[in-house]
Amino acid sequence: MNDLLTIDAAETLIGEALAPFPIEAIPLDQAAGRILRQNVTAERALPPYDRVILDGIAVAWRDGQRDFLLVATQPAGRPPLAMPDGTGQAIAVMTGSVLPSGADTVIPREDFDIQGDLVSLRADVTPRKNQHIHPKGADCAQGAALLSPGLRLTPPEMAILAANGISRPEVSVIPSIAIISTGDELVAPDAPVQDWQIRRSNEFAVAASLSRKGFTRQAFAVLPDDLALTTDHLATLLEQHDVLVLSGGVSMGQFDFVPQALTSLGVRKIFHKIAQRPGKPFWFGLSAKGQPVFALPGNPVSALACCSRHVVPALLRAQGLVQDAIPVRLGETLSPLPSMTRLVPVQLVHGADGVATAIPHPMPTSGDFNRLGMTQGLVTLPPGTAPLMPGASVLFHEW
Amino acid sequence: MNDLLTIDAAETLIGEALAPFPIEAIPLDQAAGRILRQNVTAERALPPYDRVILDGIAVAWRDGQRDFLLVATQPAGRPPLAMPDGTGQAIAVMTGSVLPSGADTVIPREDFDIQGDLVSLRADVTPRKNQHIHPKGADCAQGAALLSPGLRLTPPEMAILAANGISRPEVSVIPSIAIISTGDELVAPDAPVQDWQIRRSNEFAVAASLSRKGFTRQAFAVLPDDLALTTDHLATLLEQHDVLVLSGGVSMGQFDFVPQALTSLGVRKIFHKIAQRPGKPFWFGLSAKGQPVFALPGNPVSALACCSRHVVPALLRAQGLVQDAIPVRLGETLSPLPSMTRLVPVQLVHGADGVATAIPHPMPTSGDFNRLGMTQGLVTLPPGTAPLMPGASVLFHEW
Repeated sequence: MNDLLTIDAAETLIGEALAPFPIEAIPLDQAAGRILRQNVTAERALPPYDRVILDGIAVAWRDGQRDFLLVATQPAGRPPLAMPDGTGQAIAVMTGSVLPSGADTVIPREDFDIQGDLVSLRADVTPRKNQHIHPKGADCAQGAALLSPGLRLTPPEMAILAANGISRPEVSVIPSIAIISTGDELVAPDAPVQDWQIRRSNEFAVAASLSRKGFTRQAFAVLPDDLALTTDHLATLLEQHDVLVLSGGVSMGQFDFVPQALTSLGVRKIFHKIAQRPGKPFWFGLSAKGQPVFALPGNPVSALACCSRHVVPALLRAQGLVQDAIPVRLGETLSPLPSMTRLVPVQLVHGADGVATAIPHPMPTSGDFNRLGMTQGLVTLPPGTAPLMPGASVLFHEW
Repeated sequence: MNDLLTIDAAETLIGEALAPFPIEAIPLDQAAGRILRQNVTAERALPPYDRVILDGIAVAWRDGQRDFLLVATQPAGRPPLAMPDGTGQAIAVMTGSVLPSGADTVIPREDFDIQGDLVSLRADVTPRKNQHIHPKGADCAQGAALLSPGLRLTPPEMAILAANGISRPEVSVIPSIAIISTGDELVAPDAPVQDWQIRRSNEFAVAASLSRKGFTRQAFAVLPDDLALTTDHLATLLEQHDVLVLSGGVSMGQFDFVPQALTSLGVRKIFHKIAQRPGKPFWFGLSAKGQPVFALPGNPVSALACCSRHVVPALLRAQGLVQDAIPVRLGETLSPLPSMTRLVPVQLVHGADGVATAIPHPMPTSGDFNRLGMTQGLVTLPPGTAPLMPGASVLFHEW
């Protein structure tokens, strides 16, 4: 076992093999969830004018004033009106409107009574000069750095892009991914199934693992256990897609044609087998054109573990996003493997103390996935001999 | 302030107003990320046959045997071959294939040498009877409960559905949501902007907040500050969509026509204003046909806070998913408000000890969203007077 590639070494090899995905500019309303690939700076000072922050009246404040004549209305989205000279005058303003020039104070609507044009402050109200104004430039100077490449566009970033006039942000291209199942034993979910047959399930788990992280350009294919057909089909898929993710067909059996077919198509093997359980037969290669080809083991838990733990992080990195694994606290004793990295499905429990505790749901076999429904991901146990006790820090990867 | 609705009371009113969204059966390959609305039980025992778990040979084991004659090959996905009577015979098997009848032990490919038909165990190998077989029914009995209504279909659930023959799972309908901006002051991200104008940004943040939780059926509209046009436009939107989410137009200003227009269209106000900052002017109503109408404040931070904290959880609940807020640990001292719930944007930091610490990024004003880019969501500070100290437990909602 000691000559197997460690998972760190495997990750390094994958990282070196994958070129960054290209950049494209897309309409802002399609950009949510995408990975940003540009710097964003403040288009202008924020707020860009002295901004009224609630509905009421604007006045040039002098202490002791209680009554005002309403002389105009400042609509939102219009240039500032000029406050007439002289005390005792007011302009109606509303949230978001520009402060009329010459005014310096905003009095909220609930602080006064109004009869016709006459505004009277309520008895218990004493305005403070300059109140309820959000001064120009108070939040942000023009040109300030706001967003950097390599982050995912979540709601706040979308607001920032819009507010700063970025209507076509530059983001990472989503690669087209072929998700390929292999093996004659596989039966579709809607077909009759014999006792000796297994339903095809990996493609659905792998597709969901990819799509939830933004890899939504997917195509499905099923390969038979036949070298010539497998080779033909893979040739077509390599013409049409940027990434291939296969499951099954990479063990030692005589019907496992996948590595052979891939080699004949010019896909160079980078590694086959890693010191990891489940997922040891993981195969990774690179086409002549530089397309990554991930061939995952056929067992469902192994396939999903390799996809979540290796494929998705590698593709995200090629999009420019480095997503660190999250440290969590182990909830029960777990034994590592002496010379292999052990991956264990876990359920995350969030305690009132802010601690994320991982409750292990180890699978008795790598084919036993019916019980994975309670789990949110897996934790990584580096090779070792001493058991990891409850409370130990382990790294969590979401499925 | 004390007569304002608490956010708990507001949540209860929203929950009572929203009817569960209908159920639809959809193709499995479109179901990832959707909310399950059916029970799923094991279609059959798992594994459904004595399953070979690695590549090698199957034999009827007798102690002391070292050499075997390879007499047949058991392909995956085919009925079991019968092991011939007599010792010293072997059938080639591979991962996932059915164990030939009469065989009881699998010997891995790396444990023997093979010359022609003759298999010889390696010197250091001593097979144990029954090894490397995953017995029928070992993982799961037929009919066992696997999945319940009200969970999101992540990768493991997708594998479970496929493996148990659920090709058209029953899931919650995704409502069609109109995302509506109001206000003449709003300028599109790709248009020239004057000093006194603000770009439209709320719709992008609100849309991203909804879509990342699965509410991807969205349409956009912009309303002018005009009562008649606003009413006409809202009438059309109420004919076409299941849910309306507006931002802006619900403060006290004379140009805030939204509540008036909604009332004239038969949308019954459930509440207007809640004891929450930011987000106090939040308006919620229900159309005659039962469509929820959420009218969020126009300030970007307020709009996003109300969307993440109230709209998204309410819509998820109507889909059948109860998503508990996650407790996190406060990283810095924060003061609550005496009579209002305070929502504070935070950046989450995951420590090696498994603790999620919330670093507050309080906004000086509710219009200051350029600095929200480092935050992942917000924490809720119930009304109170005593400062919350570092280490205090607070509830986190993702944006």
